[in-house]
Amino acid sequence: MVQIRNPELDRNARASASSHGRPVLRRMSEPFTVALPDPFVLYRGGLLHQARIAYESWGRLNAARDNAVLLFTGLSPSAHAAATDSDPAPGWWQRIIGPGLALDTNRHYIVCVNSLGSCFGSTGAASINPATGERYRLDFPEVAVEDIARAGYEAMRALGVEQLDTVIGASLGGMSVVAFATQFPHAARRLISISGSPAASPFAIALRSVQREAILRDPDWQGGQYALDRPPRSGLRVARKLGTITYRSAAEWRQRFGREPIAGNAHPVSAFAPHFAVESYLESQAERFTRIFDANCYLYLSSAMDRFDLAEHGGSYAAALSNVSAKVLVIGVESDMLFAIQEQAAIAEAFANNAAATHFARLPSLEGHDAFLVDIPRFEAEIRRFLA
Amino acid sequence: MVQIRNPELDRNARASASSHGRPVLRRMSEPFTVALPDPFVLYRGGLLHQARIAYESWGRLNAARDNAVLLFTGLSPSAHAAATDSDPAPGWWQRIIGPGLALDTNRHYIVCVNSLGSCFGSTGAASINPATGERYRLDFPEVAVEDIARAGYEAMRALGVEQLDTVIGASLGGMSVVAFATQFPHAARRLISISGSPAASPFAIALRSVQREAILRDPDWQGGQYALDRPPRSGLRVARKLGTITYRSAAEWRQRFGREPIAGNAHPVSAFAPHFAVESYLESQAERFTRIFDANCYLYLSSAMDRFDLAEHGGSYAAALSNVSAKVLVIGVESDMLFAIQEQAAIAEAFANNAAATHFARLPSLEGHDAFLVDIPRFEAEIRRFLA
Repeated sequence: MVQIRNPELDRNARASASSHGRPVLRRMSEPFTVALPDPFVLYRGGLLHQARIAYESWGRLNAARDNAVLLFTGLSPSAHAAATDSDPAPGWWQRIIGPGLALDTNRHYIVCVNSLGSCFGSTGAASINPATGERYRLDFPEVAVEDIARAGYEAMRALGVEQLDTVIGASLGGMSVVAFATQFPHAARRLISISGSPAASPFAIALRSVQREAILRDPDWQGGQYALDRPPRSGLRVARKLGTITYRSAAEWRQRFGREPIAGNAHPVSAFAPHFAVESYLESQAERFTRIFDANCYLYLSSAMDRFDLAEHGGSYAAALSNVSAKVLVIGVESDMLFAIQEQAAIAEAFANNAAATHFARLPSLEGHDAFLVDIPRFEAEIRRFLA
Repeated sequence: MVQIRNPELDRNARASASSHGRPVLRRMSEPFTVALPDPFVLYRGGLLHQARIAYESWGRLNAARDNAVLLFTGLSPSAHAAATDSDPAPGWWQRIIGPGLALDTNRHYIVCVNSLGSCFGSTGAASINPATGERYRLDFPEVAVEDIARAGYEAMRALGVEQLDTVIGASLGGMSVVAFATQFPHAARRLISISGSPAASPFAIALRSVQREAILRDPDWQGGQYALDRPPRSGLRVARKLGTITYRSAAEWRQRFGREPIAGNAHPVSAFAPHFAVESYLESQAERFTRIFDANCYLYLSSAMDRFDLAEHGGSYAAALSNVSAKVLVIGVESDMLFAIQEQAAIAEAFANNAAATHFARLPSLEGHDAFLVDIPRFEAEIRRFLA
């Protein structure tokens, strides 16, 4: 089968690669981690001991400690957003972070955190529970987007930063920025929320619910007690393929794949074998993902995205952000089916209601939700202008 | 869990109901069937012996035998489009078929066929192979949309009708109408293609590919040799839920469900249990579907939809329809994500190129692909006007 490469996922996969079929829940070079306050009490009531956050950084913290940028990720990436000395592989936002780039390492100290609950060095369901010496698995407490945001801030505090220049993130990261703003309204001078949501739509909930069900019903899931060399791979494959479909747009795929058959597939093995190039693309995405992502962590983060509702903080979106004094940039993509442009508009409106200077950039990118990973020139320009 | 009822599926399910959890591949009252020509040679090369098509009918064939309407269905319904004397349960298009309705039983003899390859009385993978006395399962030959169309026409011939007043269908049925037109350009005076496609988009292919994979990777699928009391229910559930998501629109669900939690679900069993009303709706859809639909038949029909390409008939859509002299109505829905409005426009354009009188009705319905089952007044009006 033809493997159609996806440079973005390649980069993510690279962070934990050299794993040919073996489950690898750590990165090639162990990431830097910082300790969270102990206990770390979670938004929905659980608590964690000895929790840690993995991070990577670029640029230098200045003497005034006021040039830091905190970057939150989407559901699946690690903190490896760009190459570092200890891991020179390109990161998932390589063309955004660097000297003279939109996130300018000459000016800023940029820190990307692996989300609390994820599996690339931060504490999550795949981590060892210090109380038992075993992996948490489903004993891990419910993680909320609020916790991801607060853990990111605590990581910055552990690195000596109280006051941030900018907090930025896309997708789940964009939700994390909003959750950050409501909890720490004065902690950042600037906020950039990209393709996030103030509260997931029923359409997005439905899609994630089906993704989770594919994992939960995979017999190999074993009620969360799967062997590490036998994860619920079928379920993860279906979940990732469905995710991949919703991360792009029908219009992009029409241009990119059309109805091209898989090359060299004139005589498929069975009537149900992949036949079209688009299926081959999904296949390569799914294969990589199942090698690097922990199924239970996926379930926790996916649920967190469904449950997040900014209006829980004061009764309305605007009330939740009423104390925010930061300058705000909200970026949305018109072709995004998962985090619809209306949701971006709602975020912008909620910020604007409270008289912070808010700019809403509504981008016509073709690449849907993933545009921030692909349509770099448009995102570069918006972020650069805002941070100038 | 709250069961949110869907009247459309209720009606379909009713056709094969009184089955509480047991797999039932026949309707309560055995449907009428007609024999296809023997052998029935298939478009992609296979052949069938003793194949039959199940149908239901309303109204009477007139003496001139020129008032017949042939109705093709979508992927999942049976031929029970409306109540009959032998099965008085409401059908899936109950409000369209009847005395004085858009498909007027006072004027027309209306025949709905269960698609070749389906499992509600027509020959398909769940039928007995006369050569072996066992079910075909994966020995069933590849079915194309062209075969579904031709089998429908042969069923009409068996009922004494050579020349049709109208051929109509929605979804897979809309594709079947187009496949009918290219094969039998002079056999009908009028054609109505609703929410069909001249060739599936890569987005729709990707979605169906994931649905099929969920079934193929369910261990209970057993390479197609599943026990009838143990079908690949998990895979079918995921497939149907994903289908249901793509049959509607994000905007409709925002109105209909919002972020309502499931009633009485304040203390869910687990963090991953369904929490939102939209999940409960998917659940009820999936439960019903897995009771009535055969998994192998689903795989065959789903693949047929991917593979259909009108341009195979002469090199272009327009060439494929160049001999059509019928009057044509194409109906599309702007919020349809699965069979996009551009695809409806392409069908209309291909017909119009060949100087048949073509009307393209572009409907603003909110209900996406399923609008023809829900937004009855708009569809009623268009069909009624066209057939007046």
